[in-house]
Amino acid sequence: MASLSASDPVAADLIATAHELADAARAAVLPWFRAASLSADNKQAGGFDPVTQADRAAEEAMRAVLARRRPHDGVTGEEFGDLAGTSGLRWVLDPVDGTRAFLSGAPTWGVLIAVADQAGPIFGVIDQPYIGERFWGGFGQSAMRGPMGEGDLGVRGARPLGDSILFTTFPEVGTKAEEAGFRAVAEQVQLVRYGMDCYAYALLAAGQIDLVIEAGLSDYDVQAPIAVIRAAGGIVTDWQGGPAHHGGRILAAAGAEQHAAALAILRQVPA
Amino acid sequence: MASLSASDPVAADLIATAHELADAARAAVLPWFRAASLSADNKQAGGFDPVTQADRAAEEAMRAVLARRRPHDGVTGEEFGDLAGTSGLRWVLDPVDGTRAFLSGAPTWGVLIAVADQAGPIFGVIDQPYIGERFWGGFGQSAMRGPMGEGDLGVRGARPLGDSILFTTFPEVGTKAEEAGFRAVAEQVQLVRYGMDCYAYALLAAGQIDLVIEAGLSDYDVQAPIAVIRAAGGIVTDWQGGPAHHGGRILAAAGAEQHAAALAILRQVPA
Repeated sequence: MASLSASDPVAADLIATAHELADAARAAVLPWFRAASLSADNKQAGGFDPVTQADRAAEEAMRAVLARRRPHDGVTGEEFGDLAGTSGLRWVLDPVDGTRAFLSGAPTWGVLIAVADQAGPIFGVIDQPYIGERFWGGFGQSAMRGPMGEGDLGVRGARPLGDSILFTTFPEVGTKAEEAGFRAVAEQVQLVRYGMDCYAYALLAAGQIDLVIEAGLSDYDVQAPIAVIRAAGGIVTDWQGGPAHHGGRILAAAGAEQHAAALAILRQVPA
Repeated sequence: MASLSASDPVAADLIATAHELADAARAAVLPWFRAASLSADNKQAGGFDPVTQADRAAEEAMRAVLARRRPHDGVTGEEFGDLAGTSGLRWVLDPVDGTRAFLSGAPTWGVLIAVADQAGPIFGVIDQPYIGERFWGGFGQSAMRGPMGEGDLGVRGARPLGDSILFTTFPEVGTKAEEAGFRAVAEQVQLVRYGMDCYAYALLAAGQIDLVIEAGLSDYDVQAPIAVIRAAGGIVTDWQGGPAHHGGRILAAAGAEQHAAALAILRQVPA
């Protein structure tokens, strides 16, 4: 399925569906962004994992599109769980990735949409509704559309760790061991930046940065970024160099050189 | 001068000039954003303080506007230093605040424009050219214009530290002592986020977050944020509660309660 070209009718319908999902999510989520009436539930007692009305509205809007356009595909969403399908394809939805950014008014959250077969994601969209910016990739194509128009995506390519720009969302990254692994890579790069949520993966696919390292992710956090980054020529694995689409510890890289150098360090982190 | 209303002809000309400066900077800087040809010089040997062609182009464009519209005002800019004036007013320009964000493709940098009299900034603009978003304040008004239209600014108001959202750009903040002071506040707030550069001050003025704590800033980094935040009802001081417009250690707050609570901690940081 992943080897289809974008002009194949099957691929074209999946691509059109993904964009319609992103359009539906935008319309559902934007009225809640920076809205004073925003309510935040606490999913995890003791933690700060806000679920917003935006999150639910966007996922409901996307599920309605799928029920109409792709009734035989499965659906996995952050908010409403799993829906079984019969087609062998599964849509993996994160209606608001970066809820903390969303609740702070920062435009670095995004809507993540992926469609996957048994081997992993085959097409993905990272959409930032407030900026009006969308990044997508799969079926041999990768592109973006934003305030300055439309263009192809493409990673920076191989470069030494010492010339690399590294992003993660929180300086704590994950467990103490995971934080130590991140720090060991961070000490060797040119520049480290924080706070971008899924937007960091879009920047990597767009040729702006070299590495994203995160831990503790879910499948819906990573499947769209994996599809977009791979289509743009990048590499995404876990911290052992294996498949990353089930989530957990993620290493995304703009080239083989910085991927290998970071992996050599992250491999040492105890499981 | 700060007590003039926005409809006063003197104030109206300063406001119109500030917007014309922001327009000129936008046009000069956007062609360089995410451009492959971007070159980064190293201003500080051993450090990573990139100065981009964007930075210089934007400041030159703004200085040309001022030479035409306000030839008797002084100018202080990050890139080209001080120009003396005779009017008692001084324009304080940071053409690209957040050069590291700019070089990473992240839309959290901004153009900072302030006009100050002897007592400090009286009007300021924070502009994010890529998003097309502008925040301004002074002469009794504060407002923003962005992808979702135009609206008034206004801080969240007083709330306990435990319910506050705190932003800073780098987790290191500044010296070891400054980092320790920041951490002591961070341990008591609801949520800490990183990486927003001057955009964090705009979010505070827009009622999204409660606190911004930074150190090692220059006058051109803070004068526009001070004007915008004060006009939106917020508080900006140094870590002793004194004036902040010369730069250094900055504490910006959306209300008196969280300002006092953070100040009580930051006051302990040795000079």
